[in-house]
Order: sequence, then C-alpha cells, then structure tokens
Amino acid sequence: MTTEIITIGSELLHGLVRNTNIDLISGMLAEAGLRPSYHTTVGDEAEFIAEAFRTAVHRAEVVITTGGLGPTSDDITRKVIATVFRRRLILDRAVLDEIRARFKERGLDMPPINEVQALIPRGAIVIPNARGTAPGLHFTHLKTECFALPGVPSEAQDMLRDYVIPFLKQRNPGLASMIRVVRTIGLSESVLAERLQGFEREEPELKLGTIARASGVDIHLSASSADAMWLQGVLDRGERKLVERAGTVAYALGSRTLSDVVGEALLTHGLTIATAESFTGGSVGAAVVSTSGSSRYYLGGVVAYSNESKETLLGVSSETLRRVGSVSAEVAKEMARGARERLGASCAVSTTGVAGPEGGTAEKPVGLAHIGYSAQDGDVSERYLFGGSRADIIARASFYALDLVRRSLKAGVPWSEPSSRS
Amino acid sequence: MTTEIITIGSELLHGLVRNTNIDLISGMLAEAGLRPSYHTTVGDEAEFIAEAFRTAVHRAEVVITTGGLGPTSDDITRKVIATVFRRRLILDRAVLDEIRARFKERGLDMPPINEVQALIPRGAIVIPNARGTAPGLHFTHLKTECFALPGVPSEAQDMLRDYVIPFLKQRNPGLASMIRVVRTIGLSESVLAERLQGFEREEPELKLGTIARASGVDIHLSASSADAMWLQGVLDRGERKLVERAGTVAYALGSRTLSDVVGEALLTHGLTIATAESFTGGSVGAAVVSTSGSSRYYLGGVVAYSNESKETLLGVSSETLRRVGSVSAEVAKEMARGARERLGASCAVSTTGVAGPEGGTAEKPVGLAHIGYSAQDGDVSERYLFGGSRADIIARASFYALDLVRRSLKAGVPWSEPSSRS
Repeated sequence: MTTEIITIGSELLHGLVRNTNIDLISGMLAEAGLRPSYHTTVGDEAEFIAEAFRTAVHRAEVVITTGGLGPTSDDITRKVIATVFRRRLILDRAVLDEIRARFKERGLDMPPINEVQALIPRGAIVIPNARGTAPGLHFTHLKTECFALPGVPSEAQDMLRDYVIPFLKQRNPGLASMIRVVRTIGLSESVLAERLQGFEREEPELKLGTIARASGVDIHLSASSADAMWLQGVLDRGERKLVERAGTVAYALGSRTLSDVVGEALLTHGLTIATAESFTGGSVGAAVVSTSGSSRYYLGGVVAYSNESKETLLGVSSETLRRVGSVSAEVAKEMARGARERLGASCAVSTTGVAGPEGGTAEKPVGLAHIGYSAQDGDVSERYLFGGSRADIIARASFYALDLVRRSLKAGVPWSEPSSRS
Repeated sequence: MTTEIITIGSELLHGLVRNTNIDLISGMLAEAGLRPSYHTTVGDEAEFIAEAFRTAVHRAEVVITTGGLGPTSDDITRKVIATVFRRRLILDRAVLDEIRARFKERGLDMPPINEVQALIPRGAIVIPNARGTAPGLHFTHLKTECFALPGVPSEAQDMLRDYVIPFLKQRNPGLASMIRVVRTIGLSESVLAERLQGFEREEPELKLGTIARASGVDIHLSASSADAMWLQGVLDRGERKLVERAGTVAYALGSRTLSDVVGEALLTHGLTIATAESFTGGSVGAAVVSTSGSSRYYLGGVVAYSNESKETLLGVSSETLRRVGSVSAEVAKEMARGARERLGASCAVSTTGVAGPEGGTAEKPVGLAHIGYSAQDGDVSERYLFGGSRADIIARASFYALDLVRRSLKAGVPWSEPSSRS
C-alpha cells in the first residue's frame, strides 16, 4: 500500500520550524505496520498544494495531509481539494453547530471567520475533532484514500489513532511491517558494509539499511508481510545473525543508547564512574546523565580545559604536559587516573584532543583525540582521528569515550543474550 | 525560481531519525534568499527515487537532493540518475585517486566497495567533498539544475555554501535574503507574543513567526520582494523594532548562539570563566566549548554529581548540604564560588536541580533548578521550574545558566548596537 504524507505550511519550508507532524505520523504509521513511501511538504500557496495533491493521488494509494484547515485566509486546503477533485463545498449544519458549541463551552461567540471550517467537499466524510474546531476530511479519489487532518500535532495524532489507522487496518487485516535496529560503533559505514556483505542474498525477505551518526552506524532491518507471526520469526533470526556478523561493535538493539548500555553494565557490576574531559568540554558527562537514574553510578567529573586545570584538578604531571603535550596518550591516562582517584570511583574515562577548526598542527591535526580509561587493574588509552566539523569531532569523541568504557566492561549485545531484548 | 529539496533515505520515513538535512538546507537557502516550494522525502528504493526525480524536474527549476551517494548497496542515487536521465556512469580517475588519498591520510587502504563513489553520470560536474569520500554531482536536465549531495549533514552543508548557493546567486544576482531571526530567552512563547502584539498591523509588509526551543524563543521575520534594496530597509527597520520590543530577553540576531554571545563578551572584557554542574552533567561546559576559540576564556569546570564530590571538588559545606539539600540557592552559589576560586577564573556559573523522571518531591519537584553565578563582586542565584522530558529540562537549565552569565555581563543585542550585525 503506497502511502504519501503531505504536510502543508509555509513555515515548514524556512528551515526554522521543525516539521513535527512528519515524524509523528511516520512513527504512528510504522508502529501500525505501514511505512510511507513519500513525504512531501509544501507552502500555503494554492498552486503548490494542488500540484502536491495531483502527484500524490497519482502515485500513492493512501494520502494523508496535515495543515491548512484552520479558519484564516492562509488555510486553503479545503478550497484546493474542492478545485482539484471537483467537489463543491457544502456547508454542513451539524459541523457548524459543533464549532459553535465548542466556542460556547469557553463562554465565547463563534467568530464569523470560523464558519468556513464547516464547509465540506461534497461526498467527503467528516472526521470529528475532539480538541479543536477544524474537522478532518476523508474522501476517495479513484482508488486512493485521502485523509486531510489539521496541522496541530495533538489533533492530527488523535484523528490518526481513532480514525485513519483503524480504517486502514480494517482494509488490510494482516498489516505488519516491522523494523529492527542494531546499533554499532567502531567501524566506518563502508567497513561495516563489507562485514555484512552477502546478508541480503542469504536473507532475501529482509532489507538492510545503514545510517552513519556521531554515535556510530545504525543498521536498520526491515521486512513486510501480511503474516505477523512469520515476520516476527524472520526478523528475530535476521537480528541475531546481524549481531553475530557485526561482533563486538554491536552495542544495542532498538533505541537504547550507548549511555544506557554503559549505565546498565555499571549497575550490574556494582561499579561507579567518573569523567575527565578536556576538549569535549563536558559532553561525555552530559551523555552519561542523559540516562535516567545515572546518579546511582555517576559520581561526577572534571572538565580540565586549560593545562593548569589538568594539573590542579586532576594531578596530571607538569613534566608529562611539557614532554608530550596535553593531547597525548600519557595525559589521557593520567587524566582518567586522576579523576578515578579524586572522585573515588571504580573507573574513569577521559578525553583530550583538537576540536578545531583552528589549533591543528602537522603532528597534532584537527580531529586527533586520545581517550583514556582507568580502572583498578590498570590504565589504557586509544588514539583516534575524527573527521567532520568541530561539533562532529566533539560528539564522536564523546561517544567513543563511552564505547571504551563499554568494551572494557564487556557490555553490549554480543556479550548479552540478544533474545533478552525488551 | 521554483526549488525542490529531495532527501533520500528509508530511515527518514520511519519517524525514528530526524530529517536534519531538510532543516539545514532550507535554512541555508532561506538565508540566501531562496525559499524552496517543495520538500520530498523518499526511501532507498530505486522506483520511488526515480519517481521523485521525475516529478521534481517536471515542476521545479532547481532540484537539490541529499543521500544515497555512499559506498553501500542501499546507496543508489547515482544509479537512479543514470537511469532516469539516460546518462551512462563513467569511472572518474581523478575522483578515485582523491578517495584513495583520503583513506591514505588516515593510514588506511581504500576498501574496494568505495570505488563506486568515483562513478560519475556522463556530463555531470563533480562537486568536491573536503570532508568525506562521496563527491557531489551537478547536472542540468532540460532547464532544471540538479544538485545531488551526500547525506552527511556537514558534507552537504559545505557543498551548499561553497558550490550550490554561489552558483544559484550568480544565476540570479537580485536574490535578497528574506528572513531575519531575533533570538530570545527568558519569556514563554505566549508572553512574548503579547509583547509583540500589534507589530504585524504596524508593519504590514512583514510576517512574524515564533518558535519555542530549549534555547528560548526565536522570532523570525520575513518579507519578500523583487526589490532587494527596499527589502533590506524594511527588514532592518523591523528587526530594530523587534529588538526594542523584546528588550533584554533578546540575545542574538541570526544564527549566533548564546554561547557565542557569552564568549564574545568574556573576550571583550578580558575575563575567564569556569563551570560547576550537578544535574546538567557537563552540558553547560559542552555548550561553552561549542564556540570555536573557547579555550581563550574557558578554563574548565567540575561536574559534581554526587554530594560528596560537591564537597571535595568544590568545597561546598557539608553543613549547607545537610541543612538545605543539594538542590538549593545556597548550594548553587557555593558551587559557583568554589569553581571560580579553585579554577582561578574571573567568574563561574553553576547548576543544581532535579532532572527526573524520578526523584521529585512535593517540595523539590522534577524540573526544579537553581542556577548560580559567582564573580569578584558577589554571588547570585536564580530559581526555575522547567517543564518537559529529562532531556528538555537538562537542555533548558544549561541555556538558562549561560543566560545568567550573559545578563550579568550585560551582553546581547539590546546592549550592543543592532546595526553592528555581521
């Protein structure tokens, strides 16, 4: 069932307002087993809305729009539907009474401007709006089902849950399309892809996709079928196989974060942790506390941005700083050890590097990072060269720091039972 | 000039991954005076990408795509371009050498899989990629200019800034920026809207919009005209008026961040700063170092997550902690003073609060935050109650902490000359 979502609103084209309806509707449809094939966004101009409608009914079997159903002059979705699909607008008395009643509830008279919201394209079904004045519209054009919903996210969400999704499920009783996510860190997208080569040939029912993020590469596994049980089985097997192939770079399934995995491992082993950050400025600590309940294992840390603070707050030796410089394996290790000892933690992780865009040298270029880890049985460090912008480099180094902790604790999906996922 | 942006990637249709490229590209184009008329998103299936390309070249004069230029099997944009526009793929030796060199820089051999990235549709111009291995593509179909960019946001951003926008500006010399942004922090969206009431009546050429973010409320001001000079004048006047109306809650114009404004003020006054964070876990420090060159004024900080670390690392008195608890005005002030003294900084800012979702009480509910500021002439603190998720509360508290520094230093647009914007 090819599905297209059209979000209508000029503010969505400036890049300043986040298009929350797209994420919301896609998420709700995906949960129901429907994956849209197209997202389209257009401004409040009749010409562009009309063109988007024409294109959508041509290429999709289900079209869901949001926006343009309000009472003001830039709300023209109704009018465009009337023109494109040649359906006259008819005043619906029952809808008008409902809009009036909604204003009365608040002790107000309905402004005349709202009357247009009771204009319904001939033959369209009215989708009730429990929260606002704009009713939704449902009509069929040739073989395409069209649903026009209001732009207010909570109103659109209600109508999707109570009307659109039940309608589509009734039409397609077996609907089940699912997505699994295996999250990895440590390999580039292309190296990981090589490791997964042949997978799609061996599992032809499954579709694989990879997305590179600062937190590593996420592998998306999807399939669709009318048989939900069969689908579950195929996805379970595929997910297990993917984790096996990926190996220790696989850290989590679904939407769990690296910080969640590290936090759980620390709790399981009864350990506490501290952080010592230089160029990441607090990003590692911020990632750690993004997990709810982190106060049970995170004691705190030091952001030692200046060399002096590395000495005074973490006890890094001035001799080491002079000899090898602050961006070095030795300093990373001394920082981690210093944080662990001063905060009395079981273990500690540290970062030192060059975030750029200035400050790089031939020997220590922008993107160079040393990450340290200290525990009672010793200290280690790893060297990385990250690419991207200042923000990218800081974000990547922060995730790789968490990952060094994860690997040191042997945490993540390959070390746990993949079937124990929630 | 009708412009369409197509973002390619199945992950963008699931509602799991935010489509950052749409926001990024739209924002950059809007700044350059170009407003796209259509946004389209499609998955990694050849059939849907082809259909999106065909529709776009039919209805738009400029088409910009992102995604699908990577080395893996789901990266098929090159192939689809070849099929739809009947352009044979030709191996470009120079591009291949560049990709090899990029791997070599990092001491790696190019995996064979990356070779496909050097395949260029006949007649297309290669847009160089300074950050990654995927080059961009520029080709003309009938009268439509098409630009295929990589999906990695920083790479797409570079190519837009250095190639696509200059090309389009050269084609349309009269293009004038149509959007101004005045950034504020400290008032809710509805209170700010009341303060701005009547503005659109007084300035009928201008359109106003507000967007609530963790960093406060951004006001955007837009207008359009073929007369660039006139437009500039109208926007300048509107912007000045907005800043006057908003008052001291206005902190920046355009895309400058709170951290940029605070950093500039510290540099101007020759001051240094330190941070002392509890529940924000390092987010304030991370925000400070997001500004390039922050090492000139940021000395570092302490993340004192546990009560013990507040005492040992910041010298907060155990008596205060016992008497009023860690989430209190007194502790916020002692934390800031401790950080300022121990790091030898001119000033320091601190946070302590309840991020939730657990741990709230009637007296100290989830969302409660005390923010402290210490300078040589004394210490202050402010109390806030933030709403939203754990992540929202942490993000808001971090921005309000920076804002306390900003107001203490009297920095931001109302205190500077608005016309001095870059």
